[in-house]
Amino acid sequence: MTSETNSDSKTKSPKEERREDDRVIIFDTTLRDGEQCPGATMTYEEKLAVAELLDDMGVDVIEAGFPIASQGDFESVSEIAKRAKNSVICGLSRAQIPDIDRCAEAIKPAKRGRIHTFIGTSPLHRKYQMGIDQDEVLNRIEKSVTRARSHTDDVEWSCMDATRTEEDFLCRCVEMAIQCGATTVNIPDTVGYALPHEFAELIKMLIERVPGADEIVFSTHCHDDLGLAVANSLAGVTKGARQVECTINGLGERAGNAALEEIVMAIETRSDAMPYWTGIDTTMLTRASKLVSAVTAFPVQYNKAIVGRNAFAHESGIHQDGVLKNAQTFEIMTPESVGLTQSNLVMGKHSGRHAFREKLKELGYELGDNAFEDAFVRFKALADRKKHVYDEDIEALVDQEIATAHDRIKLVSLTVIAGTSGPQKATLTLDIDGKQQTHEAQGDGPVDATFAAIKAMVPHTATLELYQVHAVTEGTDAQAEVTVRLEEDGRIATGRGSDTDTLVASARAYIIALNKIFARDVRKKPETMMAS
Amino acid sequence: MTSETNSDSKTKSPKEERREDDRVIIFDTTLRDGEQCPGATMTYEEKLAVAELLDDMGVDVIEAGFPIASQGDFESVSEIAKRAKNSVICGLSRAQIPDIDRCAEAIKPAKRGRIHTFIGTSPLHRKYQMGIDQDEVLNRIEKSVTRARSHTDDVEWSCMDATRTEEDFLCRCVEMAIQCGATTVNIPDTVGYALPHEFAELIKMLIERVPGADEIVFSTHCHDDLGLAVANSLAGVTKGARQVECTINGLGERAGNAALEEIVMAIETRSDAMPYWTGIDTTMLTRASKLVSAVTAFPVQYNKAIVGRNAFAHESGIHQDGVLKNAQTFEIMTPESVGLTQSNLVMGKHSGRHAFREKLKELGYELGDNAFEDAFVRFKALADRKKHVYDEDIEALVDQEIATAHDRIKLVSLTVIAGTSGPQKATLTLDIDGKQQTHEAQGDGPVDATFAAIKAMVPHTATLELYQVHAVTEGTDAQAEVTVRLEEDGRIATGRGSDTDTLVASARAYIIALNKIFARDVRKKPETMMAS
Repeated sequence: MTSETNSDSKTKSPKEERREDDRVIIFDTTLRDGEQCPGATMTYEEKLAVAELLDDMGVDVIEAGFPIASQGDFESVSEIAKRAKNSVICGLSRAQIPDIDRCAEAIKPAKRGRIHTFIGTSPLHRKYQMGIDQDEVLNRIEKSVTRARSHTDDVEWSCMDATRTEEDFLCRCVEMAIQCGATTVNIPDTVGYALPHEFAELIKMLIERVPGADEIVFSTHCHDDLGLAVANSLAGVTKGARQVECTINGLGERAGNAALEEIVMAIETRSDAMPYWTGIDTTMLTRASKLVSAVTAFPVQYNKAIVGRNAFAHESGIHQDGVLKNAQTFEIMTPESVGLTQSNLVMGKHSGRHAFREKLKELGYELGDNAFEDAFVRFKALADRKKHVYDEDIEALVDQEIATAHDRIKLVSLTVIAGTSGPQKATLTLDIDGKQQTHEAQGDGPVDATFAAIKAMVPHTATLELYQVHAVTEGTDAQAEVTVRLEEDGRIATGRGSDTDTLVASARAYIIALNKIFARDVRKKPETMMAS
Repeated sequence: MTSETNSDSKTKSPKEERREDDRVIIFDTTLRDGEQCPGATMTYEEKLAVAELLDDMGVDVIEAGFPIASQGDFESVSEIAKRAKNSVICGLSRAQIPDIDRCAEAIKPAKRGRIHTFIGTSPLHRKYQMGIDQDEVLNRIEKSVTRARSHTDDVEWSCMDATRTEEDFLCRCVEMAIQCGATTVNIPDTVGYALPHEFAELIKMLIERVPGADEIVFSTHCHDDLGLAVANSLAGVTKGARQVECTINGLGERAGNAALEEIVMAIETRSDAMPYWTGIDTTMLTRASKLVSAVTAFPVQYNKAIVGRNAFAHESGIHQDGVLKNAQTFEIMTPESVGLTQSNLVMGKHSGRHAFREKLKELGYELGDNAFEDAFVRFKALADRKKHVYDEDIEALVDQEIATAHDRIKLVSLTVIAGTSGPQKATLTLDIDGKQQTHEAQGDGPVDATFAAIKAMVPHTATLELYQVHAVTEGTDAQAEVTVRLEEDGRIATGRGSDTDTLVASARAYIIALNKIFARDVRKKPETMMAS
C-alpha cells in the first residue's frame, strides 16, 4: 500500500490483459430480494424499467422475481425475459416441482434463462422451518435440481442459511446439487452472520472438498446485518467464488444485501490488489441508484458509499485544500467514473424549444411531438416561477409528463385553504374522461383535504400506503416531489408528482397513482389480478 | 459455524470472564468527523445533547470537536468537557503549537481530557498538501506530540492517510510519536482505500516492528468509500488494535466512517468468534441513531444495518413463517438488544393528565408544570384530529414544546390559500415579544408564502439552507415533521416543527429556528460570533 501501488491502481489494466478466470459475474437481485423487503414493492412498469437499466449496465444475471409467488411476479419475470438484450434472466423457486415448472415457464421467452432453486440446509431451518431431516433435504435437492435441469442448462442452486450449516452436511448437499446438474452453487449468508475470514474459509473448504466443485461457479449472497456484506462477498471471491449476488443501493430483506455499486467499485478501484473484473459500465451506477430509490421511495443515505449525495463531497477546510491541490489526495475514484455529473445551471425562462430538446437528449429522453409540447409548456411555466432550472427539475417534469400522457384523470386546478384554524378545505377541478368536474372537500390538513376531494369525484377503494415529500433541488423555490403509494386488493401503484407547490405536487402524485390502478383494471381481467 | 457455535453466540459470556486485554475502546467522532461533513453542521445545543447521550451510552472517548477551527467549536468542546460524567473528552488539533494549546484549553474542564493531534504522512499529503519532506514530518511529529504531552498525559497521535504511506517511513513516524509520549496511535484509512486483509497486516506490522508499540493503544479510523469501513476496523482489532474510531449512523466525510452501531453489534453478536467486548449499552443505539439523524436532518436509509427501520422487519412469506416458528431462524440479534421497541398505540382522546404524565415518564421526559400543561393541551388537540396517537407523535410534540418554551416569537394562527392558480397567499398572526401582529404575503407555493409572511414581520438576514418534510408516523392522518435550517453569518440554526398540517408544521419549524438565532444573539456578543 505504498504510493507506487496506488499509482498503479489508477492505471486500469487494459481489457486484453484481463483473464477470463478472474471475471466476477454480477448477479443482481434488486427485483427479487430487494423488492421483497417491506415497503419496496414495485409496480410492473417499474420492474421493467429497472430491468432495462440493469441490462444496459452490463449486469450478467438479473434475478427478475419469484414466479410462483404471484401472477404479477410471473408476468414481470416473463416480460423481462422477453425484453432482455444481454443479461441472463433468472427466476427463483423453492425446492418444489410446481415452483420450478412455473419458473421455467416464466423465463422461457429469454434468450438466456436461468432457474434458481433453493432449500434451507441449517439445523434451524431443517428443524423449525421445514420439520425434515438431513436425508429428506438431500432427497429434495436431488428432485428439484434434476427437475430444473430438465428445463434448462443454466441451473443455480442455493443452500439457504449455509453459514450456519454443519460443514460435512453442507458438502454433501453441494455435491448432490452438482451431481444433479447445478451449474452455479450459491452460498448465502442468509442472516448476515458471517465474518469475512469465516466466509472466505467456507468457500475455500467447499471448493477443496466437494467433488466436481471445479466444474461449476460458486456464488456469494451476503446480507448486511452486521455491516459486513461487501467484505464477506469480496472475501468469498478471493477464495474462488466467481459470482456475487447483490442489489442496487444494497436493497433487500432487513439490513439488505451487498450493494452492487460497492462490490463493483471496490473491484474496479483496487484492481492493483485484486486481479478481478466485472462487465459493469460503472458510469451507470448513479442512474441505477436514483431509479431504484425513486421507484421504491427508499431514500439513499447521504453518506452511502459510491451513490450517497455526500460520497464525493468535501467540506472540511483541510480536505478541500487537499482536493484543490491534487484530487488524489482525498479521492480514490472520480465522480465521473460512477456517472455523477455536476447539476448544471443551463436552462432558464429564455431557453427556447431547440435548447430544451437538446437538453432532453442530453438527459436521455426522446419524446413524441405532443409529449414534447406538453413538457415544454410545463418547463416554461416552471422557469417563470423558479430562478434556476436544474437537470433534476427537468427530469422530474418529464418523468411526470411521460407518466400522465394517456391518463383518464387529469388535474385542472386546485385551490387549498389551510392553516391553524381548520378544518382545511380543498377545491379541486379534475378532467375525468374529458369532462371537467369540481368538488370542495375538508380534511385534517391540506393534503388530507386535497385527497378527500379526489376521492369524492373518483370513488375508489385503494388506500394510501405511503406519502412522502422530497425536494428535487435545493433552495427556497425548489420543486417539491411527492410520492404517493396506493394499494387496492394487494395491487400497488406509485405516483410521483412535482411542482413548486407541495399541495399541487401531492394532488398530481395521487392522480398518477390512481390512473395506474385504473390502467391496470382495463388491461387485465379482474380474476387474473386476484392472484397477485 | 455450525448450529452449536451459533447457540453459543446467544449466551453472552458473563462480565467476569471478560479479559481487560480484550476490551475495545469505542472512540466516537460523530461531533468532529461526522459534524464536518457537508450539511451535517450541528448547533451548540445539539452538540451538547448528542454528547450527553454518548456519555450515558458508555462511549469511552468522545471527540467533541476541533477547537482551533472556530469559536463555536471551542465553546462546545469546552462545555462538553465540563459536563461529561464518564467519557474522556477529546479535541482535535493539527501538528501546530497554537492548535494544540487551544485544544488543551478547551478540554481543561474535563475530568479526563485527551489531545488528538495529526499530520499527513503519505507521499501525496507530504508533497501536495504540505510541500514538506519526510524529515520535516518527523520534526513536526516530535514538536506536536511533545507539546501535547506537556498539557496532558492522554495524547493521541494520527498519521493521516496511513494506508497509503510507505511502510518504513510509517514505522519511523509511529516510533517518534511513541517516543514523544503518545499513548494512543491512530491509523486512519483516510480515503477508505484499504481492504480488510491489508489493514489487518498494517496493524500487525506496526505492532511487530515499532519499538514501544506494546506500551500504547493502536486505534483504527476507517472510512467507508468502498463499503469496507466496519470490516477494516474489525480486521484491525483482530491484529491488536484496541480502539475503534467510529460515528453514529456512520456519519462523516464523503461515505462516512465506520458505524458505531455496526462495530458494537458485530462484536456483541459474534462474541463466539471474537473474544472482544465494549462498554456500550447497546439498548441505547436506536435512540442515538434517531437523535443524530434528527439534529443533522440526514435520513437513515431503511436497510441500514442495526438502526434502519427495516433492519428487524420481515416481509417475505418464507421469512415470516420462519420467524414465527423460531425467531433465531432469521434473527441473529433481538430488536430489544438495540433498544427498538414497538410503537405502541396507547394514547387517545380519552387519555387524561395522569396517563399522559406516565407516558412522558416512560419516554424519558420530565416537564415542569407549565410546560406539561402546554404539552397536554397540544396532545388533546392532536388526539382530536388524529385517530391513533403513537409514541413518536408524543415525542415530536414534546420536543417542540421544550424547544419553544422561552421563545420571543410564537405562532398564533395561519391561513394559507394555495393551488394551481397562484400566487399562493399566507395570512399569518405571530406573537412577538407579547404583541400580536398579522401579515398577508404571497409566494411561489404555500411554504414560500408562509415564510415570506414571517420575514415581513420579523426582518432577518438568515437564509434558508434546508427544508425537509418527514412523516412522524404512518397513515393519512400522520403528523408531518418539518425541518428547517437557517444560516446567518456562518451560524446555523435548525428548527423542527410538527403538525397534521404540513404548512403549520413548516411555520413552526421556521419560527423555532429563528428563535434559536435570536437566542444566540442575546447570549453572545456579535464580535465573538464573527469567528465561528
